[in-house]
Amino acid sequence: MTEATGAGVPEELTVAVLGGTGPQGRGLARRFAAAGVRVVLGSRDAGRAGATAADLAAATGGDVTGDDNRGAARAGDVVVVAVPWDGHGELLAGLREELAGKVVVDCVNPLGFDKQGAFALPVEEGSAAQQAAALLPDSRVVAAFHHVSAVVLEDPEVAEVDTDIMVLGDDREATDLVQALASAVPGMRGVYAGRLRNAHQVEALTANLISVNRRYKAHAGLRVTDV
Amino acid sequence: MTEATGAGVPEELTVAVLGGTGPQGRGLARRFAAAGVRVVLGSRDAGRAGATAADLAAATGGDVTGDDNRGAARAGDVVVVAVPWDGHGELLAGLREELAGKVVVDCVNPLGFDKQGAFALPVEEGSAAQQAAALLPDSRVVAAFHHVSAVVLEDPEVAEVDTDIMVLGDDREATDLVQALASAVPGMRGVYAGRLRNAHQVEALTANLISVNRRYKAHAGLRVTDV
Repeated sequence: MTEATGAGVPEELTVAVLGGTGPQGRGLARRFAAAGVRVVLGSRDAGRAGATAADLAAATGGDVTGDDNRGAARAGDVVVVAVPWDGHGELLAGLREELAGKVVVDCVNPLGFDKQGAFALPVEEGSAAQQAAALLPDSRVVAAFHHVSAVVLEDPEVAEVDTDIMVLGDDREATDLVQALASAVPGMRGVYAGRLRNAHQVEALTANLISVNRRYKAHAGLRVTDV
Repeated sequence: MTEATGAGVPEELTVAVLGGTGPQGRGLARRFAAAGVRVVLGSRDAGRAGATAADLAAATGGDVTGDDNRGAARAGDVVVVAVPWDGHGELLAGLREELAGKVVVDCVNPLGFDKQGAFALPVEEGSAAQQAAALLPDSRVVAAFHHVSAVVLEDPEVAEVDTDIMVLGDDREATDLVQALASAVPGMRGVYAGRLRNAHQVEALTANLISVNRRYKAHAGLRVTDV
């Protein structure tokens, strides 16, 4: 397995996680903080973000603080969007100014659920990441972290997160940085996996991994072979 | 890594490969034959199918014969559809009777290509596999073998094909059989990955693997972790 990352994570980098009190956001924040990356959790409720941040700082020994989503967006150099699909567009449309010039990492999976499990929802712009790019023309939008299980991320017994992270985007510097961020987490590896126009299927594939999880009682991830 | 397969491949099973003289079909046929599975190659041109079959039989020591697509469809218990997307619907519509009651394995990726690489084409039925299911109401349609590189399949130096095969379908017995067929090939493993309604993103993900291959000069495959 070769190093699929670009350079490492700059020491002074601050990563904001919007939706940082939900399982996915909280789990990613935990892993970034444990890897020595400075993290600002964002949430609709700044108090709740602060409480979760304090828990994560205590659990990881890392530098984690909390704020409302706007404050977190302002504080982050890289801003991870880990909010539910419902509300995704509205939140981002209101943060265009705060997110201008920044690397915005969309990890939202537009999925529906019924008795037969999960399925991909149609998205007018093609994908959640393309919606973000349309709403944030001054930001550098990257799609990543769709497939990693929140249960695994949040499990303190899991020392290495056994999955590759598919990183998509049209800005090479931005995708390199997000690959490095992913690869900073023990076990994880950021792998470039195409342009933003090919984000839909990466988001939608989460529905398949949910099917895998049901069938095999697993928390499935993906590894890209021959890379 | 647990055994994700169902039971093994029945000894008397015949696998037909439509489009068996193209790289993907020929590569899959080679691996099935080498694994001891009886194979009938189908092609528009029966003579060409026969010649390719003779080559594969000599190369693998397996039981490989050739016929036109109709004759192969008639001969197979499991019929793998490895034709180009352009012509997929027309071919299947003409084989409804021959394919009735059979397990039809669609491995077609509806992709377009331009200067920026590959991208997913829209499919009215949702996916190539769902188009097959719509055209073949009397068959048991399974989607599988989308991501495995033809170059790897055809390379006699490659002893083990390092990839999992995502197997999708709504008929448990059929998906179990196709998982077993995939797992009969050294290195490969069939993993159940959802219902046919979630086939689009699995087909479309091939565009991302093409991006991976370009960036890393690789022949990428996928492994599902924790299964």
